[in-house]
Amino acid sequence: MSQQSSGKFITLEGGEGVGKSTNLQFITGWLEHRGIDYVQTREPGGTPLAEQLRTLLLEKREEAVDPTAELLMVFAARAQHLNTVIKPALAAGKWVVCDRFTDATYAYQGGGRGLDRALIAQLEQTVQGALRPDRVLLLDLDPEIGLQRAASTGAADRFESEQAAFFRKVRAAYRARADVAPERYAVIDAAQPLAGVQAQLARELETIASNQ
Amino acid sequence: MSQQSSGKFITLEGGEGVGKSTNLQFITGWLEHRGIDYVQTREPGGTPLAEQLRTLLLEKREEAVDPTAELLMVFAARAQHLNTVIKPALAAGKWVVCDRFTDATYAYQGGGRGLDRALIAQLEQTVQGALRPDRVLLLDLDPEIGLQRAASTGAADRFESEQAAFFRKVRAAYRARADVAPERYAVIDAAQPLAGVQAQLARELETIASNQ
Repeated sequence: MSQQSSGKFITLEGGEGVGKSTNLQFITGWLEHRGIDYVQTREPGGTPLAEQLRTLLLEKREEAVDPTAELLMVFAARAQHLNTVIKPALAAGKWVVCDRFTDATYAYQGGGRGLDRALIAQLEQTVQGALRPDRVLLLDLDPEIGLQRAASTGAADRFESEQAAFFRKVRAAYRARADVAPERYAVIDAAQPLAGVQAQLARELETIASNQ
Repeated sequence: MSQQSSGKFITLEGGEGVGKSTNLQFITGWLEHRGIDYVQTREPGGTPLAEQLRTLLLEKREEAVDPTAELLMVFAARAQHLNTVIKPALAAGKWVVCDRFTDATYAYQGGGRGLDRALIAQLEQTVQGALRPDRVLLLDLDPEIGLQRAASTGAADRFESEQAAFFRKVRAAYRARADVAPERYAVIDAAQPLAGVQAQLARELETIASNQ
């Protein structure tokens, strides 16, 4: 992607309570300070249709949701988001900062729900072709700490209502993704004080910006 | 499926204005008369979540819908419907009468939208495994006649608003499906008087019921 343009595709990943919102603000503040044109977006979501799919995915419901149905809804929202928002922004040379992307699918639907990784990879290929984030910023935190932090931020959605074992599998799946492709992942210790997290984020952003 | 139980999976297919609603009533009336336990359902839809996905698929919207996103939404709804409604009913020995199923995906998303049939087949395998309808009742009609009939039944949804060329491709795709597997399809001329359509439907149902 980046060979055709100066657009960079950056995703911020992590489980519950790792501080994504706060650090997204830091990242966009850094980009504004540097005068870099960017689009901030999120998954699932990012377009009206994809946000409607997000609502269906997150709301708690009586009906048990089939894991394959959940996975296909996630990739449906992603196809819409990629073709409507992400690819046009990158083609226009903008940075795209996305709150969660396909690593979250490997973590939540693959790790958490136990869905076949090969099926996720097949859908990733169908929807994304060769497009991958230039850099994945993974905020890594013991889920026991994360869940305590997240508990203070309002009613839990369908994912946040999962049990501790689910979130341990989510974290393990995220870390396994980073372990096999360290050149694309920055694993950031989210248990350290915020200043330390943001110093590391700033170094990462500096490196990405210098790789034009 | 049917080797394990006496449940039969029957789908009713066809383009706009072919008379599906009227003929569904005829089919369920026939089953009731014969004392056959059945579930009547439809796609996309058939569960609360799948009906919500149906609404997102059918409603007209400003946003152009990515064809792959549309296809994945259809199969997400199908996964939910199959695992929540169709498979349990068949396992309990009931007949399932479904207003549209995967043939409609080959016709509308494959024929109409031009999506790769191999991708549809891959998703069919992922979501359905080996499960296929025991019999597909295809109401076949020149779309020019069908669209005239359908025009009198209220506001058009996102699919009904397509152009005539789209519906010619839908019909051709349906007929091509029947041509390659005639043992699973009954192609019924929906241009003939209703009595003739229903006489043919009755013969089909009789044959299915006798193949226990």
